[in-house]
Amino acid sequence: MEETVYMHEVQYYETDAMQIVHHSNYIRWFEEARHDYLKRAGFPYEEIEARGIIIPVLTADCEYKAAVRFGEKVKIVSSLESFNGLRFELAYHVYTEDGTELHASGHTGHCFLDRNMRPVNIKKKAPDIYECFCQHVKK
Amino acid sequence: MEETVYMHEVQYYETDAMQIVHHSNYIRWFEEARHDYLKRAGFPYEEIEARGIIIPVLTADCEYKAAVRFGEKVKIVSSLESFNGLRFELAYHVYTEDGTELHASGHTGHCFLDRNMRPVNIKKKAPDIYECFCQHVKK
Amino acid sequence: MEETVYMHEVQYYETDAMQIVHHSNYIRWFEEARHDYLKRAGFPYEEIEARGIIIPVLTADCEYKAAVRFGEKVKIVSSLESFNGLRFELAYHVYTEDGTELHASGHTGHCFLDRNMRPVNIKKKAPDIYECFCQHVKK
Amino acid sequence: MEETVYMHEVQYYETDAMQIVHHSNYIRWFEEARHDYLKRAGFPYEEIEARGIIIPVLTADCEYKAAVRFGEKVKIVSSLESFNGLRFELAYHVYTEDGTELHASGHTGHCFLDRNMRPVNIKKKAPDIYECFCQHVKK
Repeated sequence: MEETVYMHEVQYYETDAMQIVHHSNYIRWFEEARHDYLKRAGFPYEEIEARGIIIPVLTADCEYKAAVRFGEKVKIVSSLESFNGLRFELAYHVYTEDGTELHASGHTGHCFLDRNMRPVNIKKKAPDIYECFCQHVKK
Repeated sequence: MEETVYMHEVQYYETDAMQIVHHSNYIRWFEEARHDYLKRAGFPYEEIEARGIIIPVLTADCEYKAAVRFGEKVKIVSSLESFNGLRFELAYHVYTEDGTELHASGHTGHCFLDRNMRPVNIKKKAPDIYECFCQHVKK
Repeated sequence: MEETVYMHEVQYYETDAMQIVHHSNYIRWFEEARHDYLKRAGFPYEEIEARGIIIPVLTADCEYKAAVRFGEKVKIVSSLESFNGLRFELAYHVYTEDGTELHASGHTGHCFLDRNMRPVNIKKKAPDIYECFCQHVKK
Repeated sequence: MEETVYMHEVQYYETDAMQIVHHSNYIRWFEEARHDYLKRAGFPYEEIEARGIIIPVLTADCEYKAAVRFGEKVKIVSSLESFNGLRFELAYHVYTEDGTELHASGHTGHCFLDRNMRPVNIKKKAPDIYECFCQHVKK
């Protein structure tokens, strides 16, 4: 699984007075695409949390190239850019529905914590997740 | 304390493509005004939660009369309409900053739960909150 | 078309510190379901706006019966409760994915405006939309 | 005006199921702080838009260091990092209310467009805004 493709239909409540999607929503779309990625990799995020592992966001960035409007659908391509056992980074590309135009691209960085917000050794605590990330990371 | 007055400055991210504030945000403003109400009554909501009491929303309604735009401030007047020991209802009126025009009005209904989402006898569990609500409810 | 069925997957950003979906999001889900309704009726909202007609929200209400959590999907059933040529009202029922449990129900009320926010005679300005609403309204 | 200080009170609707503020809201807080910056600089954003100039977001990034919880207030320090007549960048630091701990820091990049989303020569179209940015940019 080099990449996942996630479709999002733009909602009216995501637009702002510029009559385009408010830029903060791309960060939320990245989360939607990320949770879809984890589900496809076999680890829905609600199951990860149920095992006592929390995956907070450490960094997020987005470059906006072409506005998205209500009535449009976007195609978000996600990939696991890096993973070192402690931290990982996903990259996202937001395209038009047909994939021809790039609306935006960005990244989010993450680590693994327990319920008390302390770092977790994922290789020990959840070797299946560790293996999965090793397999999926871009080479 | 018959009523509280809470001011909210409209944020750009609260607007939508109609170039007015998206209607869902009034429900969020009611929450801001409600938490301000509780704080002024002596019971900040974070302290109520720290005592193991959760106050979920059972009902919410809003009537929209005049749109609000970016660059404006609104004045929200809140009052405790009813309280019977188990449930309570707050009423909200959203005015222009100077209080001359009514933008919207609405209500939210609530109960008291414990951390396991079971009903709480507030008179027993938190007599100080019970007393406070008895004093503040509209007569 | 007596009713439409719209599925929504709960997003993490829709949850709050009670670890359930924040109540304001149901008002947004009603909008998603409403725009889906209009699309299925043959009138995507972006096309209605492109014809110079705006459909603002005049009233909204919601009764919350059972909380929704991250990892769940909800099934929203929408129906056109009333229409008199000037105003209309939709009713929404939010069920579990399998339709067996009711999470919440509510309504939104609307009118038709032009771009200058003045009332529109929809029968004259858009007889096709008028006809459609007449056909779909619950009898 | 090297820096502005903007205070934000955390709202319950900004929290998520991790019981901390959802990371996307920091991007919204940057907007709040940015509009406060422009107002203090003498150019409220609603007046800029009324003059036919739109300031979209081209880039946004945030590094999250320590979570923020409901019941807390944050202090956001903003500064104009760069300005070249076409583009500008603001930096933001989100501190605890007393300014002793850093919660997060980030940037947003912007340009100037007209109502048709075409680049604007701000020195020609709005020399007063141009002068203001020249004065405020960090040296």
